[in-house]
Amino acid sequence: MTAALSAHELIARHRSTLDQALEAIRTRAYWSPHPEHPKAYGENGSLDAAAGKAAFDALLGTRLDLGQPGTDDWVGGETSPYGIDLGVTYPHADLDVLLPAMKAGQRAWRDAGAEQRAVVCLEILKRISDRTHEFAHAVMHTSGQAFMMAFQAGGPHAQDRGLEAVAYAYVEQVRTPDNAEWTKPQGKRDPLAMTKQFTPVPRGIGLVIGCNTFPTWNGYPGLFASLATGNAVLVKPHPRAVLPLALTVQVAREVLADTGFDPNLVALAAERPGEGIAKTLALRPEIRIIDYTGSTTFGDWLEANARQAQVYTEKAGVNTVVVHSTSDYKGMLSNLAFSLSLYSGQMCTTPQNLLVPREGIATDQGPKSYDEVVADLAKAVDGLLGDDARANALLGAIVNPDVKARLDKASGLGEVALASREITNADFPGAVVRTPVIVKLDGAKPDAEAAYMSECFGPVSFAVAVDSVTDAVELLGRTIREKGAMTVGAYTTDYEVEQAVREVCLEEAAQLSLNLTGGVYVNQTAAFSDFHGSGGNPAASAALCDGAFVANRFRVVEVRREA
Amino acid sequence: MTAALSAHELIARHRSTLDQALEAIRTRAYWSPHPEHPKAYGENGSLDAAAGKAAFDALLGTRLDLGQPGTDDWVGGETSPYGIDLGVTYPHADLDVLLPAMKAGQRAWRDAGAEQRAVVCLEILKRISDRTHEFAHAVMHTSGQAFMMAFQAGGPHAQDRGLEAVAYAYVEQVRTPDNAEWTKPQGKRDPLAMTKQFTPVPRGIGLVIGCNTFPTWNGYPGLFASLATGNAVLVKPHPRAVLPLALTVQVAREVLADTGFDPNLVALAAERPGEGIAKTLALRPEIRIIDYTGSTTFGDWLEANARQAQVYTEKAGVNTVVVHSTSDYKGMLSNLAFSLSLYSGQMCTTPQNLLVPREGIATDQGPKSYDEVVADLAKAVDGLLGDDARANALLGAIVNPDVKARLDKASGLGEVALASREITNADFPGAVVRTPVIVKLDGAKPDAEAAYMSECFGPVSFAVAVDSVTDAVELLGRTIREKGAMTVGAYTTDYEVEQAVREVCLEEAAQLSLNLTGGVYVNQTAAFSDFHGSGGNPAASAALCDGAFVANRFRVVEVRREA
Repeated sequence: MTAALSAHELIARHRSTLDQALEAIRTRAYWSPHPEHPKAYGENGSLDAAAGKAAFDALLGTRLDLGQPGTDDWVGGETSPYGIDLGVTYPHADLDVLLPAMKAGQRAWRDAGAEQRAVVCLEILKRISDRTHEFAHAVMHTSGQAFMMAFQAGGPHAQDRGLEAVAYAYVEQVRTPDNAEWTKPQGKRDPLAMTKQFTPVPRGIGLVIGCNTFPTWNGYPGLFASLATGNAVLVKPHPRAVLPLALTVQVAREVLADTGFDPNLVALAAERPGEGIAKTLALRPEIRIIDYTGSTTFGDWLEANARQAQVYTEKAGVNTVVVHSTSDYKGMLSNLAFSLSLYSGQMCTTPQNLLVPREGIATDQGPKSYDEVVADLAKAVDGLLGDDARANALLGAIVNPDVKARLDKASGLGEVALASREITNADFPGAVVRTPVIVKLDGAKPDAEAAYMSECFGPVSFAVAVDSVTDAVELLGRTIREKGAMTVGAYTTDYEVEQAVREVCLEEAAQLSLNLTGGVYVNQTAAFSDFHGSGGNPAASAALCDGAFVANRFRVVEVRREA
Repeated sequence: MTAALSAHELIARHRSTLDQALEAIRTRAYWSPHPEHPKAYGENGSLDAAAGKAAFDALLGTRLDLGQPGTDDWVGGETSPYGIDLGVTYPHADLDVLLPAMKAGQRAWRDAGAEQRAVVCLEILKRISDRTHEFAHAVMHTSGQAFMMAFQAGGPHAQDRGLEAVAYAYVEQVRTPDNAEWTKPQGKRDPLAMTKQFTPVPRGIGLVIGCNTFPTWNGYPGLFASLATGNAVLVKPHPRAVLPLALTVQVAREVLADTGFDPNLVALAAERPGEGIAKTLALRPEIRIIDYTGSTTFGDWLEANARQAQVYTEKAGVNTVVVHSTSDYKGMLSNLAFSLSLYSGQMCTTPQNLLVPREGIATDQGPKSYDEVVADLAKAVDGLLGDDARANALLGAIVNPDVKARLDKASGLGEVALASREITNADFPGAVVRTPVIVKLDGAKPDAEAAYMSECFGPVSFAVAVDSVTDAVELLGRTIREKGAMTVGAYTTDYEVEQAVREVCLEEAAQLSLNLTGGVYVNQTAAFSDFHGSGGNPAASAALCDGAFVANRFRVVEVRREA
């Protein structure tokens, strides 16, 4: 096969970006090659806003033919949380044809080596980046995220996480040299001398099981980590969020072909409604790696049953914010209000339980009782979402009926401090848009505990009154240990309290944000700097992204001979 | 607690060794700080041969009191494969006392950081090294290895593997900086600025389940990898090989106390005969990491059931040597003869199946038929072991009755090309010493396949006649895929054949030694350079030692706040 893009050209094009990524994961300073601002697109081959929208519109109602072998049907049926039917159909695969076809190109991909695989991955990310505006609409109309969030989280931030995985995968593979000379002295006799060759080899096919809310952001790390370590990758999107990952597969296949590799190294596994192919796929012997984001029930099932595979899961958790004291009461309230509102709380990182001492908290505006704190937070949320246009831009749409059902039920769990409101979306009348509900619970009551000790995914938060900050810290620890947590927040001006919260987070392995009052929110993590999850509590078995996330996706084979 | 040895002193003493180890794992050139020659010991505080022997003798018949909390009994009963009763008793633990006690010192150990943990581990290794002569007798009289092998493999080589694990663990933990400043531009607005702190945190208690044949060599990587990453470590030795690991625990506890840490961070779990505490321990919630060497049955059980833990297993495998052609027939025969004889074939790396084409092989001494190759190999083994003193020094003793039973049965599996002989050990009349048996099998016959496709651990090899080298390569691939392999050897002067064997090893993830005719043997791997196992085939889920072996023994917790 003649490659339109040679290895040399790819390295010239992307090596410096790779080097910058390697430096960023080492220093963990701010860095990103992917612009966050929509207006930054439109030059050097990238689609601007209008072209991206037009490209998305042109996809609607079409068949997305990826040219995959073993396609035995065309399936689809995504309905946007904004109320429109996408009408796109995707290839449905005969696995007994597709999986062997995916293996066919694996040897050449393995033999290409770590650097060439990395720059091919960077070319894929570059072409995805060029289509960020198009992807933004695809993410918006599958996840229900508001446009700007779909643009940023589904575009540059997801691409950053993919690139981060490529950087980790690359550096892990080149830790061992390609070749070594080994000469062992033998006293007066001739030394023993050996020549050794080391080759990173893939495990097989990696399976990425996508989620409804962040198809690209949560899908890219596993996809790129597996691909960059020499594996083929089969992408099984959530049935409600196929398009963003189908487009990703399309780009990957184009780039693989253009660079002289077999496009079947990356393929899509779309499914019929109710088919539930994830279970079937997860147990196929060809699948040796699984990356999964979704429910704890299915994540646990994968870990228990997909024994032939390395399994990386992100599951449910219960995120806590300990509210003890603050030197910036207003900043705290507005920061928390934003965190609770962003994407209607449909983030795995959104705080759920706000633990507030019953006797109240100390602030720069004097002591505030538990009731005052909760009422002021409710006011802050109300103020933030008072304008419908702004509310729509922050909240997005409720992603599916399950979330709405949980929201509807939440107001019966305790005293409602802030009721959820219905918001009209002028552009998309079919969108289900809701403001968050805040429910007051007494932490000491057993029936309240049943509520706050379960994940209530969606725009639902519990303001839990606790007897003391000591109790808050104890409850924080128990919640992480038993339920897991993707994030922990804390507000305190007291060094002892800060240390106690920190100690619990170190002990239970949870990521802690302290005293956030400005423009960084507990639910956001930045690639190359922040870890997403810890891999050390029940919410996730892996962190994005660290050495453990990539190191076991390949093995090193040594061939040695006498020198 | 006042430390007899300060962090500063430890770093001054060991940092340069750590740096050399880090360089060695990067270049994979030859390096070791642990002398292989028995005469190298006796200065700078190390025990010489006589002192080491005396120290060992003084242990016999004593109670080894490690000062562990929760000791409710004293247990023992090791009988040396050389026929003497060791008579040493060890603490038996009440786990409900011991395990909580092991957790008590974990916070200080975590807070000490990666460098201090590394140099404490190096101090442990240094004190073990000083007692190498004593350990050599302990390993000899539990594993049945001959003295020189017990000395080298149980001493410096095991210490090398421990140090290698410390080096990997250290470098993995310092990949992420302790602190980072993150400043994100916001156009005309003030940048977002965050201060981030990153802390490696342990998973909990690591459990090391030792084996009978290489208690230190196979035990040290997991022990030191877990300890260096901040975990406490509970060592559960094989009931027939307690002493070497009990002495290891003794040294570790001394060093931890001397350096100001809680000695209970490392403890021993000895058991009563038939108690089988490994299963109980493996399911304890405190146990979060397990390193295991032993049978496939129990390894599979651990992987399926110890779901709360990271499980690293080395299990059974079937090692193959493909014999196709050679430019040094004599060298090949003597190299293979040594490999089959060393420690009576009781190594997980000993070749079992020698695949020889039915039509014979090309050599520098002309073509040799299958029958000639097998007869010549038998002669080479016979010659190597003709002298009883030399035979004893190479073979050691049969480690336990199970191995002897398999050996006795093997001669009934096919035509015996070389019968096993009984050798007398003048020093230890009770030792069971046997030369290896070589059995001829027809690779095409189903009843033969039942024999050569199972691990027959011990001094048993099968000379399998195959129809062609193509068949040999196919069988090699199938054997690795279905049964696993710690090692693969091949002899060929043909480039195409070499590439075919190499491709199978890359595809099935097995470590390959090509055309060994000198003083390096397929069953030996050198720390810092050779990987032991690949972690990619059924013989082992981990390789010694790579990033994957250490990366998931700790997690990184981030604490971030506005700058």
